[in-house]
Amino acid sequence: MPGGSQRCILLRAYPQGMPRASDFELVERALSSPGVGEVLVETSFLSMDPAPRMRMNPTAREPPPLSLGDVVLGRGVGTVRESRHADYQAGDIVAGELGWQEYAVLPGAQLRKVDPTRGPIQAALGVLGPSGTTAWCLVNAAAKVRPGETVVVAAAAGSVGSIAIQLARNIGTRTIGIVGSDKQAAFVRDRLGADAVVNYQSQTLAADLAAAAPNGVNVFLDSVGGALHNAVMEQIAVHARIIAFGYISAYNTQGAPPAEYGRIFRVIHRRAELRGFLIADFVAHFGDAQRELVELLVAGGIINEEHTVDGLEQAPSAFAALFTGDPIGKQLVRIPSQ
Amino acid sequence: MPGGSQRCILLRAYPQGMPRASDFELVERALSSPGVGEVLVETSFLSMDPAPRMRMNPTAREPPPLSLGDVVLGRGVGTVRESRHADYQAGDIVAGELGWQEYAVLPGAQLRKVDPTRGPIQAALGVLGPSGTTAWCLVNAAAKVRPGETVVVAAAAGSVGSIAIQLARNIGTRTIGIVGSDKQAAFVRDRLGADAVVNYQSQTLAADLAAAAPNGVNVFLDSVGGALHNAVMEQIAVHARIIAFGYISAYNTQGAPPAEYGRIFRVIHRRAELRGFLIADFVAHFGDAQRELVELLVAGGIINEEHTVDGLEQAPSAFAALFTGDPIGKQLVRIPSQ
Repeated sequence: MPGGSQRCILLRAYPQGMPRASDFELVERALSSPGVGEVLVETSFLSMDPAPRMRMNPTAREPPPLSLGDVVLGRGVGTVRESRHADYQAGDIVAGELGWQEYAVLPGAQLRKVDPTRGPIQAALGVLGPSGTTAWCLVNAAAKVRPGETVVVAAAAGSVGSIAIQLARNIGTRTIGIVGSDKQAAFVRDRLGADAVVNYQSQTLAADLAAAAPNGVNVFLDSVGGALHNAVMEQIAVHARIIAFGYISAYNTQGAPPAEYGRIFRVIHRRAELRGFLIADFVAHFGDAQRELVELLVAGGIINEEHTVDGLEQAPSAFAALFTGDPIGKQLVRIPSQ
Repeated sequence: MPGGSQRCILLRAYPQGMPRASDFELVERALSSPGVGEVLVETSFLSMDPAPRMRMNPTAREPPPLSLGDVVLGRGVGTVRESRHADYQAGDIVAGELGWQEYAVLPGAQLRKVDPTRGPIQAALGVLGPSGTTAWCLVNAAAKVRPGETVVVAAAAGSVGSIAIQLARNIGTRTIGIVGSDKQAAFVRDRLGADAVVNYQSQTLAADLAAAAPNGVNVFLDSVGGALHNAVMEQIAVHARIIAFGYISAYNTQGAPPAEYGRIFRVIHRRAELRGFLIADFVAHFGDAQRELVELLVAGGIINEEHTVDGLEQAPSAFAALFTGDPIGKQLVRIPSQ
């Protein structure tokens, strides 16, 4: 803490499209001291992640945008230099939202301890931290990947994708990594052991995906969205699970993002579930359904509204009226006995 | 069976937009006799449903389109007049895919018996048949509606919607019925007991939905799609479940349907699941994730790829390179100790 000052990087401008150096400013600032319950941490490693880009958009709603002049967001790992929190003492290695700065003062409750005997401390930002944990939960808890399935991983060379594709591979799936360059393709195929790689920028993306997933896609772990999302959705198999956890393709869009981005992003943020339904999947419930519906009808717990027209020749107009009319209840055509 | 002939309605033209009378033709045809294992059924009631409209589109893929000249699809209930199947005898009441015709010859295996003591036989097409069963399974098995939730039902005056909204109401939810007219609004509110109704044609649809669902929408049973789907998606609550089981808004679209229709329709047909994911929901799994990731790293079951640049001042360019570069593995900025 030489001179009681430190260097920080502030957000100076909301990036227009891709972030540029001029959107940020390196400043020297006085070090603050930890208050009661707080800890002073010296940063050793900062994690670079796409998600904070969303908060560099002045129209972001949830989570809200950074203010200009704020220290840029970023998770980090570092060493406790001064503690006023009972759980921490000087020398402890901790991880948390340190920001792009050499020192951070944070409430102890917002930090977690890192065991430096478990591996290099920066692994707490990656494979043993949020990236690895996210990949593990995507594969095992959210998508519940099963042996023999075909699994597509977006941004497969990235921090989450590179772990997810290895975990899926270990389960005994056919893994397809989505990449953006030949270098990434070689890494994902040769080092991570993916069964196939597809470049999302390919002019023949749909055909490439179809060739890589001849039996359809059972699981799609999607952090990218946009055209890639739509292309993979063309190849989904029956009972496919698509887990959306990012939409990197739109993070650098200038102006209003596409409406679809808003919808998928809301699905992510609200952790919503959109499911396709065909009644044939629910045969096991038909008995319960019948029993309860009969009981309810008899007891007056539901009413059954029908509208009936007479004569086979009425069928075309009764059918059209489903769409153009003002139908109420079940629409029926009665055919008098011959 | 007067004169051994019957009347049928054939598909004569693929409807352009809304179905019209001229798309269909009423013809007189010789009655066929049941073969071994088949049953001759005299139709009493035909069910009018939107879904067969999809198969009147020559570009339909799954299920495939009707051929011109085919008897129009339609479920019906009727009386067995002649049986060559051991499970049926003359006089039995049965339901099945009878089509728009006075008599149908079908394999016995494609029929189901209707108990005429349970209510009017046509209920086997509605509340005690596919419509009611679909509504019950949507509410109880697919969406698993819980007391206190806000439930939006599209086409709430229709055969499935009118049952679904009553079942949801009985569970103790706030029910919002989507309607297309004042007459439907009155029916859904006053007869079915919905807490609120919203007209999908309203000029203030977004505001109407927001007012009707002040705490957001927990469950959306959607058979309509299109603009309504998008509007309701703006109001979804955390952990919302959206069950898509139709896309009526596009069934009568002329020319190529919107891309979004193709995607949602595929989700329906494949019974896929699109889920939004935030890692914070999976805290209960973090212990397992850590344990397994550490074991895998130690055993060489996964590799951990990192790329590190040195110096806080490198953070802006390392961040930009996530999007414009060719990143491999976890991207880190190392800050040398002061």
